[in-house]
Amino acid sequence: MDSTTLLYHLLDLGDKVLALSFDYGQRHRKELEYAARTCARLDVRHTVVDLSSAGSLLVGSALTSPEIAVPHGHYEDESMRLTVVPNRNMIMMAIAGGYGLAEGCSRLAVAVHAGDHAVYPDCRPQFIADFEAALRSGNYEQVSVYAPFLGWTKGDIACLGLDLGIDFERDTWSCYEGGEEPCGKCGTCVERAEALAAAGASRPAG
Amino acid sequence: MDSTTLLYHLLDLGDKVLALSFDYGQRHRKELEYAARTCARLDVRHTVVDLSSAGSLLVGSALTSPEIAVPHGHYEDESMRLTVVPNRNMIMMAIAGGYGLAEGCSRLAVAVHAGDHAVYPDCRPQFIADFEAALRSGNYEQVSVYAPFLGWTKGDIACLGLDLGIDFERDTWSCYEGGEEPCGKCGTCVERAEALAAAGASRPAG
Repeated sequence: MDSTTLLYHLLDLGDKVLALSFDYGQRHRKELEYAARTCARLDVRHTVVDLSSAGSLLVGSALTSPEIAVPHGHYEDESMRLTVVPNRNMIMMAIAGGYGLAEGCSRLAVAVHAGDHAVYPDCRPQFIADFEAALRSGNYEQVSVYAPFLGWTKGDIACLGLDLGIDFERDTWSCYEGGEEPCGKCGTCVERAEALAAAGASRPAG
Repeated sequence: MDSTTLLYHLLDLGDKVLALSFDYGQRHRKELEYAARTCARLDVRHTVVDLSSAGSLLVGSALTSPEIAVPHGHYEDESMRLTVVPNRNMIMMAIAGGYGLAEGCSRLAVAVHAGDHAVYPDCRPQFIADFEAALRSGNYEQVSVYAPFLGWTKGDIACLGLDLGIDFERDTWSCYEGGEEPCGKCGTCVERAEALAAAGASRPAG
């Protein structure tokens, strides 16, 4: 939901976008297929970075370890810390930054938002600021970080997405379980349903 | 030379070390075989992270693009900027940080040194400080960055390595060309020869 809305937002601004997805061994790699389909439809170049070799190093998260159950509930719940993949956003953003620099891009856009702050330290403003400082000092050319949803709720994102004409049910996948149908119980299913409800959409979670 | 000396130094301190190498499509991937052999001999767990998928995104460097010639000369020379891989150290250190966090390590050791500062911004003290801040703010658990050679010359590293009993010719590979024998002309061959000379070693560059 978040990344797809960001993509629509960037295209709405008139930006030329190069899209990156990451295969880090997540259970819900279904999101990669949804991303590929959306990008193809929008005529956006989409690349999947295979981090499965690095991903196997990032053990201890319910998102990557089959033996750890995906917790149910809200992002504020303590159990959601099981879904933290250590240093995940820095890894993905570091690769995206290098790619952007090689391609001569002016900014790196990420869809982190305030709803993620409670559980994921690497979605918080301090991390984004520190990351941007390191990206700046580590390179000759400069790419800025664009995180327009940093202070937004997921409901705000759903609102913008609906305004931009996104069909979330058709075009996006959130569920951490990665089964045939969304489980409706994991943190991301619960947040998604609430966001869409808050945005006044009458769609089921999915 | 730098990484091998760092490994010996850490073992000399009594640290338990987990070693990481990165295959990012570099010409000189021969360094990976040397690293594997050294770690096997020292009984250190060694993992090669396959970044060739991400590496193909990091174009425009003589280290990864066959069509760009590896420049000759010293690191201060302007042409050495051709060997800069955008954001390379942040990518490798971000993955190493995530791995260290997953494994419960207390620090992430890197062998950046003052001889690299002229050409590579991601070897400079400011980058190391900014990276460490992002690693701290982005994660619950904490891994510090240990860069003991940050203010050292390569000659200082060679001295320490010889003191620690390293056979550089047998155990390390530097040449960016990655041929059968070291070319003796690329930046890293030149720096290596000078460092070993400065350290009072009578070995040929190699």
